[in-house]
Formats: sequence, structure tokens, C-alpha cells
Amino acid sequence: MIPVEEARGRILAALSPTPAEIVPLAEAWGRVLAAPVTARLTQPPRDVSAMDGYALRAADGGLGARLRVVGAAPAGHPWDGTLAAGEALRLFTGSVVPAGADTVLLQEDAARDGDSVTVNEAATPGRHIRRAGQDFAVGDVLISPGKRLNARDIGLIAAGNHPWVAVHRRPRVAILATGDEIALPGDPIPPGGIVSSNSHALAALVRACGGEAVVLPIAPDDRAALMATVDAVHGMDLLVTSGGASVGEHDLVQEALGARGLVVDFWQIAMRPGKPLMHGRLGEVAMIGLPGNPVSSLVCAILFLVPALAKLGGLPASAPPTVPARLGAALAANDRRADHLRATLSLDGDGGLVATAFARQDSSLLRTMAQADALILRAPHAPALAAGAAVPVIRLDALGL
Amino acid sequence: MIPVEEARGRILAALSPTPAEIVPLAEAWGRVLAAPVTARLTQPPRDVSAMDGYALRAADGGLGARLRVVGAAPAGHPWDGTLAAGEALRLFTGSVVPAGADTVLLQEDAARDGDSVTVNEAATPGRHIRRAGQDFAVGDVLISPGKRLNARDIGLIAAGNHPWVAVHRRPRVAILATGDEIALPGDPIPPGGIVSSNSHALAALVRACGGEAVVLPIAPDDRAALMATVDAVHGMDLLVTSGGASVGEHDLVQEALGARGLVVDFWQIAMRPGKPLMHGRLGEVAMIGLPGNPVSSLVCAILFLVPALAKLGGLPASAPPTVPARLGAALAANDRRADHLRATLSLDGDGGLVATAFARQDSSLLRTMAQADALILRAPHAPALAAGAAVPVIRLDALGL
Repeated sequence: MIPVEEARGRILAALSPTPAEIVPLAEAWGRVLAAPVTARLTQPPRDVSAMDGYALRAADGGLGARLRVVGAAPAGHPWDGTLAAGEALRLFTGSVVPAGADTVLLQEDAARDGDSVTVNEAATPGRHIRRAGQDFAVGDVLISPGKRLNARDIGLIAAGNHPWVAVHRRPRVAILATGDEIALPGDPIPPGGIVSSNSHALAALVRACGGEAVVLPIAPDDRAALMATVDAVHGMDLLVTSGGASVGEHDLVQEALGARGLVVDFWQIAMRPGKPLMHGRLGEVAMIGLPGNPVSSLVCAILFLVPALAKLGGLPASAPPTVPARLGAALAANDRRADHLRATLSLDGDGGLVATAFARQDSSLLRTMAQADALILRAPHAPALAAGAAVPVIRLDALGL
Repeated sequence: MIPVEEARGRILAALSPTPAEIVPLAEAWGRVLAAPVTARLTQPPRDVSAMDGYALRAADGGLGARLRVVGAAPAGHPWDGTLAAGEALRLFTGSVVPAGADTVLLQEDAARDGDSVTVNEAATPGRHIRRAGQDFAVGDVLISPGKRLNARDIGLIAAGNHPWVAVHRRPRVAILATGDEIALPGDPIPPGGIVSSNSHALAALVRACGGEAVVLPIAPDDRAALMATVDAVHGMDLLVTSGGASVGEHDLVQEALGARGLVVDFWQIAMRPGKPLMHGRLGEVAMIGLPGNPVSSLVCAILFLVPALAKLGGLPASAPPTVPARLGAALAANDRRADHLRATLSLDGDGGLVATAFARQDSSLLRTMAQADALILRAPHAPALAAGAAVPVIRLDALGL
């Protein structure tokens, strides 16, 4: 059995980010930037007014001065002249400040009377003017590669005048559930069988991480069916199987795919829930074999598949982030396997996180996996802890998993 | 000017959740559940083995006992007989425990020899058996309405045997940017004009919140063009405009749409960045008019549009959640408008959040909006605060906005 960190490191080492593709800006939300976005223009492009009011020469703008209004320049309709002494130009927020002017008089500090305006608040040079380039200048790097684009990024890329964006292609992940005993929801269930939940839970997780899931038909415990998988994974970035990863008599995956070019780096990982996890390569395609148990499969997916998808997708890849919490109830000492306890989160009086493990942690309990807000991490041989002790937790809620 | 909370309350009061639609389970990730999901079967369906090993009668399982192996029952291939005294049945994880048996002997505690097996660890009744229904029983509510479905929920719904899920229809949101001075990215920019960033930033935000954005062509400051909007919003759940919401001379939205049935509940909101925000109804369609300034538009969208989308989408709707942080740098006293300062977040030595406002908060600086991790909330008339003081922040990073 190898430690969790070593297993993760070996999985990540075998993967590379997908190449870039071009998508329209309108489709770029949630995608991972593959090349720097640089400003194609200067913003603001020229000195513009920050308010509605009048452009004038500050030297003319003494209290009570009366200026001649020579025109109006709505935003998008700049006035091309040069403002002379004694003149004012009606402006609005975003209007270009004309040549000759060096300040803006607020509309509420001005009294308009026909073609003239009276200054009711003495002008100061530079007031209410946004200087050309104060947000960004042409050539500035606005966003660097490796960032998942949010709504604000999309706005900034638009402002930088980019209709197209280079992003990492979504990682394509084939998902294969195996086992004679499982059936898809709504399909007839074999005697003693159960409904397969892994394929669609894993597909949703792939989607949550920005990937594209291809759900293969369930493979029965049959060598020929498993061998046919090889043709289905052509062009995929990753094959994820569930079930068949341990070495029991009915775990044929390794054997069947071995005959079709599977190179296995097989592990027993020192963790719970989990343990049997297969890692290797099927021809050109990297492979992660998750346990068939739905809870074990999801926990292993969070620990190994989510970082793998991050690396494939062009994001920084590492262990799922943990945050500190205090125990809501005592925990017994741990054995030699790292444990990942399903837990609920609450807040204490000071706003601190409290993590309380479900009393029953049996890996057959999928419902508590769905109800969990977090996983409490317990290192191998961790000592017993009293309520209130500090523990690291993976916040499933905050990670959107 | 009315307070932020009152404005949000009035916007939310005017909206109702969208009706339910049926989507395939494979498309249900990220959708909001519209009806309870109840278990259509019991899980496990019968008593099953938690391990690989042998089913037997505990009474027969003394240390050193030798039992006759009557067959094998792989998962999905149950053995239909009744186990008699002195008999054992080979089982695997998930195999149905046969009638007559009441315990499972681990494979590693058994010595197999042809048709017989020797007990190397005394058996205990009930060991390694998962009881029928210990995860859930038919009819149990697995997930309640009003939850955005994550990957674990999808797994649980699958396990409950549902191929279809009733979810709230995605809110349809029409987005209209107005102004003579703006152009779409890549299009020719008018003299003195700028590239429009609001439409696509808002569309991305709608998408981030689970909605479907329909981006309308930019409307020039022209009555006829604005009036044509009315026909474009038929069947939408919400119209969001940017620009034209204040009462300046070139803000025609209110006037033009007024002639086509706009009922306006117009506000100046006591906030910054922001202030001019229009709320009303254009015929059957609810409307929020955001400011034209990109930073103000995004901040108002986070404070008002995100909760509106939550309510439309069937989620609990409230103010964006805040978390406590300590100031990384002092802040001056605030005036009568609630302020929302763009800030970066870091961690102090104890893992506590530190929020540091950007020195320049001018609402023309879209780049700092994209760089911000959080908004520091400053109430109207909030006093000056020293570095280290506690403030509430909206974590933009954690909200995925």
C-alpha cells in the first residue's frame, strides 16, 4: 500500500494539459485561459469625464464666473474643437474632455441659463477627469494563462477588445462502469443487483471540473466486452473505470485490458474509503481505475480525479484544498490507512468551522456521502482526538463537488 | 435614495421561481431540484456481504472448524438455496447473503482446500453483513427541492433508480446594453467610444447562476431602437439593461420603454459603486436596469441580480453571503452611501482572512474589479477603521463570480 500523496503525484506526473482551442468570448465563461490576454486598446482611450457637467479651463472657473456654452458632447459624440478662454462644453459621464479644457464642473455646481453657465463651486484643475489609460494601456497583460474565467474576467477581456479567447480544450474523459450486478437507472435490475450510480456521479464530477464526459455502456464481467473498451477510448484524454480494480476472482478489468495493451502501475493505496485503485495507460490513454463501491469511488475521485482534471484542463494541480475546523465530536485513533470521514459543518459562536463526522462511516452509505458538507482528513496512525480538537477538512460544499 | 436591503427586497418580491421541467439524469448536474426525489428501491436490496469471504452459520464458525463449500455467489449472481449446518458459500463484496447464513468469514481468515474451508478466526453473528435498507428504504426522501444538484446528489438519485429528474427551468434573462458610445468586441469602435463589456460579463454571470442569457444587440440612444426591445423580451423571465438608468439628458430607456408599457419603480440606491438602478416591469417581464459603468454594473449585479437569479431558479434567495475578515490596511470613514470596496484576500498566521482594499476605488477601474477576491462592505456612515479591524466581506472567489 502506498500513501495518498505518492499516488496522486504519480497520477499527475503522467498527465499533460490539453492544447488550446479558440472559443467565442460568449462561450468562454468557466473555461481555462491558455494564452495571456493583452489589452488591444487603452482604456479610457482619451481623458474622459467622470461625471455629468461642463468641461472648462480651471483658470476660468472662479466662483461666480459666467462661461459661454459652446456645445454638448454626449458619450460617443466627442466635440472636435479646442475650448477657448471663457468657454464651457456640456459633458456627460464618459464624454471625451475636449482639447483646451482641464477640469469638469459638476452639473449640480453649475447654473445653466440659455447659452451660458454660472460656476457655483470654484473649479480645480484635473477634477472629475479620468485620464487616458488609467484602467489599462494597450499591450498590458490583463489576464494570465491558467485561470478559470469568471464573469468579471469576461468583462475585462471584452473591454480589452477580444471577441475570441484561447482556452484549453475541455479534457475528454471516458467513463466505464463494470460489473454483472449493476444496471442503469430505470433499466431492469438483475437478481441481487443494484442500480449503477458511479457512471453518472463521475460524469457530473467531470463536468463540474470543466471536462467532457463520455459515458460508455456498462461492461459486464466478461473479457470480450472489456476488451472492446479499447476501441471506445480512442482520442480520449483519460479513461476512468469503476469496479474491477481489486484483485478478487471477478475483477477482470486488469486481465482483459492487459491483453489489449494496458500498462498497469497498480496500487493498493493506504486510505479509506478506497484502497483498490488502478493507475496506468491503455495505449495512448491515461487510465484511473476507481473502486466499484459508490462512496469509495467518489472519495477517490475527489482525491485523485479532481486534481487530474485540473492538470489536464490547464489549471494548477494539487491536493484538494483543506481548511481548519474543530471537531464537533471526539474521534477514535486511526489505523494505518488515511481516513476521510464524511462530516457535516456548522459554525461556532465565533464564526469558526465545526466538523462533526457521521456516526456511521460504512462505505455502503451513499446517502451520508450526499449529505456531507466536508471530509475530515485523518492521517495514518492519527491519535484519538477530543471534541474541539483541530482537524483539516476538505469542504465539498465550497468546491462545488 | 433607498437602502440596499430595501431595494433587494422589492426586486425579490416581484419574482417567482420558474416552473419545473424534466431533464435526463445525465443533464441534471448543476440544476435546481423542483420536486423531492424519493427512493424507488431499498438499498442494499437484501442483506449483502461487505467483504470477500464465506457466508456461514456463526454457530458453525468456531476456530478450526471445517465447512463444506456448497457454491459461489458473485455479486449479481445470488445463490438461491438455504445454507444448512456445516455449509459455507463463497461470497464477494456486494453478494447477497443466502438464507440460513448469519455471518461472513473474511477470505483472509479462511483456508480453502478443494470443496472445504477451515475457519482461522472465530465467527461472530452479523459480522461483515450490510443489512437490507441500511443506506435507504423505498419511499425515503433522498433529496429535497430547492437544492442545486452536485455530483454526489447525481449519484444518490441514480442509486434511487431515477433516470429523469424534475428541475426548475433555467431562468431566461434578456440582456440589453444601451449607448451610442459602445461597440461589441472586435466591431468598429465609434469616435470617443469604448468596447462594451457589460453584456457579456452579465451573460457570464447569468450562466454562472444557472440561467440562460439572451444577449440583445446593443441599442443606440434612440427611441425607436429601444422601443423595439419590447418584442425581443417576450417569454423572458427577466430583462436586464445596462446604461440609461439615471436621469441624465441622454438616458432614454425609461422614456422610450415607458411608451411601451414599462411600469417603473425607480430608485437611486444609497450605494457605491452604483446608485442609479431601475426596477420595474415591461409588460409581463420583470426588469432590472443596471448602471452603464462596468464596475458599477457588476457590483449591482452581484448585489441584486445574483439573488434575483437564485429566486427565479428555485433556490433560497438572500443577500450574497458575507464572511468575517480583518483589514489589511486602514479605511477612512464612509459617507451616507453603502460602499463596496474591491479588495484582495490573504491569510494571516492563524489562517484568518485578511482583506486589503485597492488604494484606488474609482468605478472606471474594471481591472481591479477582475483582480478583486472580495468586496469589503461598508455601511452608510461607517466610522474610520484601523488595520486589523473586523469587516464583513463578500468572497467573489468562493461564489464563483
